[in-house]
Amino acid sequence: MKQYLKPDAWQIIEEGFDPHLNRISESVFSIGNGRMGQRANFEETYSGDTHQGSYVAGVYYPDKTRVGWWKNGYPEYFAKVLNAPSWIGIKIALDGESLDLAHCKVEDFRRVLDMKQGLLSRTFTATLPSGRKVKVDARRFVSMANGEVGAIRYHLVPLNFSAKARLTLSVDADVVNKDSNYDEKFWEEVYKESQMGWAMVTAATKKTNFHVCTGIEYQLILDGKTTRGKVYTNLREKYADNEVEVELKEGKDLIVFKYGVVLSSENHPKEYLANLCRAKLEEATATGFDKLLEAHVKWWAHKWEEADISIEGDIAAQQGIRFNIFQLMQTYTGEDERLNIGPKGFTGEKYGGSTYWDTEAYCLPFYLATSDPGVARNLLVYRYKHLPRAIENAKKLGYTSGAAFYPFVTMNGEECHNEWEITFEEIHRTSAMAYAMRDYIDYTGDWKYLTEFGLEVLIGISRFWSQRVNWSADKGKYVILGVTGPNEYENNVNNNWYTNYLGAWTLRFTQQAIDFVRKDNAGKYQELVQRLQFREQEETTRWADIVKNMYYPEDKTRGVYLQQDGFLDKELIKVADLRPEDRPLNQKWSWDRILRSCFIKQADVLQCIYLFEDDFSIDQIKRNFDFYEPMTVHESSLSPCVHVILASKLGYTEKAYEFYLRTARLDLDDYNNDTEDGCHITSMAGTWMAVVKGFGGMRVREGKLHFHPFIPPQWTSYSFRIEFRGRVIKVRVSKDKTDTILESGEPLDIVMNGKPVRVG
Amino acid sequence: MKQYLKPDAWQIIEEGFDPHLNRISESVFSIGNGRMGQRANFEETYSGDTHQGSYVAGVYYPDKTRVGWWKNGYPEYFAKVLNAPSWIGIKIALDGESLDLAHCKVEDFRRVLDMKQGLLSRTFTATLPSGRKVKVDARRFVSMANGEVGAIRYHLVPLNFSAKARLTLSVDADVVNKDSNYDEKFWEEVYKESQMGWAMVTAATKKTNFHVCTGIEYQLILDGKTTRGKVYTNLREKYADNEVEVELKEGKDLIVFKYGVVLSSENHPKEYLANLCRAKLEEATATGFDKLLEAHVKWWAHKWEEADISIEGDIAAQQGIRFNIFQLMQTYTGEDERLNIGPKGFTGEKYGGSTYWDTEAYCLPFYLATSDPGVARNLLVYRYKHLPRAIENAKKLGYTSGAAFYPFVTMNGEECHNEWEITFEEIHRTSAMAYAMRDYIDYTGDWKYLTEFGLEVLIGISRFWSQRVNWSADKGKYVILGVTGPNEYENNVNNNWYTNYLGAWTLRFTQQAIDFVRKDNAGKYQELVQRLQFREQEETTRWADIVKNMYYPEDKTRGVYLQQDGFLDKELIKVADLRPEDRPLNQKWSWDRILRSCFIKQADVLQCIYLFEDDFSIDQIKRNFDFYEPMTVHESSLSPCVHVILASKLGYTEKAYEFYLRTARLDLDDYNNDTEDGCHITSMAGTWMAVVKGFGGMRVREGKLHFHPFIPPQWTSYSFRIEFRGRVIKVRVSKDKTDTILESGEPLDIVMNGKPVRVG
Repeated sequence: MKQYLKPDAWQIIEEGFDPHLNRISESVFSIGNGRMGQRANFEETYSGDTHQGSYVAGVYYPDKTRVGWWKNGYPEYFAKVLNAPSWIGIKIALDGESLDLAHCKVEDFRRVLDMKQGLLSRTFTATLPSGRKVKVDARRFVSMANGEVGAIRYHLVPLNFSAKARLTLSVDADVVNKDSNYDEKFWEEVYKESQMGWAMVTAATKKTNFHVCTGIEYQLILDGKTTRGKVYTNLREKYADNEVEVELKEGKDLIVFKYGVVLSSENHPKEYLANLCRAKLEEATATGFDKLLEAHVKWWAHKWEEADISIEGDIAAQQGIRFNIFQLMQTYTGEDERLNIGPKGFTGEKYGGSTYWDTEAYCLPFYLATSDPGVARNLLVYRYKHLPRAIENAKKLGYTSGAAFYPFVTMNGEECHNEWEITFEEIHRTSAMAYAMRDYIDYTGDWKYLTEFGLEVLIGISRFWSQRVNWSADKGKYVILGVTGPNEYENNVNNNWYTNYLGAWTLRFTQQAIDFVRKDNAGKYQELVQRLQFREQEETTRWADIVKNMYYPEDKTRGVYLQQDGFLDKELIKVADLRPEDRPLNQKWSWDRILRSCFIKQADVLQCIYLFEDDFSIDQIKRNFDFYEPMTVHESSLSPCVHVILASKLGYTEKAYEFYLRTARLDLDDYNNDTEDGCHITSMAGTWMAVVKGFGGMRVREGKLHFHPFIPPQWTSYSFRIEFRGRVIKVRVSKDKTDTILESGEPLDIVMNGKPVRVG
Repeated sequence: MKQYLKPDAWQIIEEGFDPHLNRISESVFSIGNGRMGQRANFEETYSGDTHQGSYVAGVYYPDKTRVGWWKNGYPEYFAKVLNAPSWIGIKIALDGESLDLAHCKVEDFRRVLDMKQGLLSRTFTATLPSGRKVKVDARRFVSMANGEVGAIRYHLVPLNFSAKARLTLSVDADVVNKDSNYDEKFWEEVYKESQMGWAMVTAATKKTNFHVCTGIEYQLILDGKTTRGKVYTNLREKYADNEVEVELKEGKDLIVFKYGVVLSSENHPKEYLANLCRAKLEEATATGFDKLLEAHVKWWAHKWEEADISIEGDIAAQQGIRFNIFQLMQTYTGEDERLNIGPKGFTGEKYGGSTYWDTEAYCLPFYLATSDPGVARNLLVYRYKHLPRAIENAKKLGYTSGAAFYPFVTMNGEECHNEWEITFEEIHRTSAMAYAMRDYIDYTGDWKYLTEFGLEVLIGISRFWSQRVNWSADKGKYVILGVTGPNEYENNVNNNWYTNYLGAWTLRFTQQAIDFVRKDNAGKYQELVQRLQFREQEETTRWADIVKNMYYPEDKTRGVYLQQDGFLDKELIKVADLRPEDRPLNQKWSWDRILRSCFIKQADVLQCIYLFEDDFSIDQIKRNFDFYEPMTVHESSLSPCVHVILASKLGYTEKAYEFYLRTARLDLDDYNNDTEDGCHITSMAGTWMAVVKGFGGMRVREGKLHFHPFIPPQWTSYSFRIEFRGRVIKVRVSKDKTDTILESGEPLDIVMNGKPVRVG
């Protein structure tokens, strides 16, 4: 854990330059716009420790799988988020001496991420080895208003010298993925050009053949006057630049405006990329930094109006929650149904493939409540489009008849992951797709989604479960053997309660969906039955039989559900009784020891209770929470939020606040010592849920919003906004009351603390 | 399955050259002498498909581990059997035209492994692209009488031409391991020399710095006369040779005698290797091929007298069993307690590390009965010497107080393997060391081994079990969670019956050993108590409590032991009901499907019953055999032999013979389609057991030999020899009677079919 960032309601602030923290800051201060993103690397040369990272949404590379021991069924490729061509480089040499903070005395260093504006800035004074002293103010953003454009304003003042400055303004596609399995480079050059004032490189990914054209253009203002300088154009492999010589005068400033345009063949025909890039560069340059920024800030202002959470009386909590919302918003805007939410967003490339069940289980509620319903719908459609691949994936593992098994990690629908205990056995994820539909329909009322897309997916998933269960003659029940539940500190267990529950629920929900679609659109239904060769009578009869006779492990004495068969054979020890030097377990204990211990990585039984809360009495929830919570180590960033929500419901307010702190500042305080690899984007949605569903107690029941708020004693007040069926509602919770304000749309009947209330 | 080898009682014969079978033959026709070995590669150039392999016992390289997903506790290195410098090369160019069977018309090709003599020979007539026709007769062996010497007699006749022949007689240390994790070469050059008539290279392994000096010397006989030819000496990196020009005359033969000397720094000081090599080369050359062979054949004659099994009336079975005995004998001679029995012996490098529990569970009985007791004892001492590493290994996984956890795969005592479900969880192997002691003591009566070495190991292992079990409050019993049993088609199960049984038995046996050693040598015992900080009272009390309260899963209705908790939740299907296209499961089914199926890779419950046969009634054995046998797929080569032994005991004679066939010709018939990687050396001991313990019904009970033979109807008779407490006894079983003949030593009282008999 590190606490070097300054608290502030709207800004993330780093003061003073510590090279050891640089990779962490590069992650935290990342900027993105849903289409592309950029770690907070320096524009000028930096020879110290850094992880240079530029990313373009939807562009991936299927890296050849690396394993020690091959298991039948492993995928041959792991689709990776690609480190993409960089447009930010502005190298500076002063009479031949390079400006490189690794070799300078750095003073007044300040890195600021202004979340309100979506602007990254960095200011410092540097003394070079020669004694030359410069002052720099660098700002940049990637435009939310124009997803293919980024802009830099780089302001430099020579404080104590005059010199010939050589600026290298580059676009560089000769980049590598740090996690390349076989030290390969994934990009090949297609086209490059460097002309006076601009340059571009089109690079193509190997195998997948995505083309990305990255162009740059720039303007120089020397002592207030536009200048061209003396320009040299250079081309190297996968690289193009302009070198510009200008005469710097002591005390007179130089401002460089650099514009980047990043175009992907996912959005434009390959053959037009270069011309289009040229045109967009001209347009960006003509518009200029200030006007581009203005449009960008406007977008953010609107976003914050929809999605802000304000907390009074706890600046660290305030900063934390805004940081989470900010990162989520700049990772995924929901405009493009081909995209999804990578676990590291645009802040790093670790964990390769972009889509996990995190999206459905954690992110969907956030986008549902803070964006137009089309955004969440696009997330569902994304999985609909992957259905053929999910069927293929199931087939590879021996399933038949159109059973659909969604991958654990994916880019294009194909499975990427290769740990058998996860890839093959963490099967609950396939039903996350079903749960997401229910969540979406509950929130939006859009049952017709089932007719258009949903039912087809549900039938595929139900066919999977129908084949995955088996009849235990011994138990006289259906059982699900050899699985890994959400708690990945158990592998290959039998009858994981969460999995059995979710599997059976999916079969029930599919029946509900069938009933709806048949009524809603009989023709469409018949077409589906034909196309899927759906033997309704036979298949649904079996599903009903499974639902009726599913086995659920439980401990009747304690009145708790059992995480899996045999759980009670473990030594039931509390986390509180562990020696501090044993934590975190995943770094201190060997894997087998973790597996046979009772310790829980992330909510499992409790996750299920959270998802199907209304199926359980308060007493049942309490008994299970009291049993499992003390054994949970929360070594997954996705865990504490579920505990906040349940603890809040149970009135365990102190616990709720304690869990909230673990999640809200996870990356800002580098809680798990891994922020340098990138931020934990998907779990940030959990933080949002912790406030809105946890403290705010928001639920949707039968189409109605319910709230049951409480306020942590440390806070003066907090408020959040949600979008719900055409309204924007602001909920403000203070010590003594809760206000609900209709900010737009028609009046709405809600339920506040169990009582009906009209908002508006 | 392939059946291209000709049946013969004493020889393995390949007739006709099929390049597609070459790698298989290179494995099957391998020769070795316990110190070094060599795949049956050609001496001359061969540009076709080949796996060149030379091996030196005890020389290994710790290759950096490669995994997809690192688990805490994995070893950083995997010690690998090394592909070593080759001494066999004799390249031949005829007027510049290379003799390379890949480019010749090959006639009368015959490769023969004479198992009686330990001699590999190869004869053929080849027509080169130019039309030149040569006849070759190449013979070689690595001497059993002198473990550091190999010899080749290469006889060539130009049938239809005269030519200037250039022979390249090389020693080549520029070799690679096919299974190198990062495509590295593991050898570095130390020294090389090439002089008229001889050459040598000393190479050192990276990291481990073993030195191996490989020298060659040769003699040429041209048309009956010794000749020197015109000699060019060459040195390249890690390589030395003599190129010799001689004038070949049509119809006149050229005989090349090439001698190889391979010296390892494991056996000689590094600084003397080169001089010693030179001296040994001179000695070998002076002795000459014929005399060297004579001594070698004499060794084999003696060996066959001790260890032969003859089978009349079934030539394929006869060839199979002799091949197995031959390979075992040339892999491990038992002279060096630092060595062990690699799963591929000197026939290939797959499976890296050399020592598995195969040695204790399968190989030990073979060496006990066919060699001096010192050989088996050395196998035990090998593990004693690894005790400190086993303790270190346990410590790494969180065990304390001198608990010893033997590795699953090792070269020097350190764990090499890196699948968590095996490395960390297949824990039964640590007790294989204890069982081997009991087996050894039962057979030899040498209880004093416990005083000298055994008890120290047993206390370490018992300490491991004492910490590995945990108390299940739910069951009111000790349980062992998260293990993999011998049946590796189950992973991370709870209460594997075999493991629980073996663990508790180890604790009992250790108490027995304590009682013995205390009486046998009180001083030594006290010294041990001190050194191990053995709190006898406290520790043995806990052990006794565990023994008393161990949990054993069973199905009381069926009267069978359960392989593990939850086994009855599976669908209990018979192998006979599988579709043929689903076999072998490990190639056709995804891993999760295998895991949750009932199918058993290798004997598990039955393995335990085999090991502790006398603990169970015939009825219990029968019920368990009848339950598990139909679900066993025998996809491990170690499985069928156990079934032969139990089936024989139960009078299931047909089944016994059927299982025997699976094991006896596994490599000769390339049953599993993997002989090209090398032969399955350790399972060959299982074949021997199948005959002696299975058909012969041999057991040792309270120091007495028991037999209970039967003869498969397909056989006329069979006989085997065993060494037992100073005697050699031959047992000959025919249709109507069994003869026992005392071949050496004092008369002995044995039990034949339950009745006492005196032999001799």
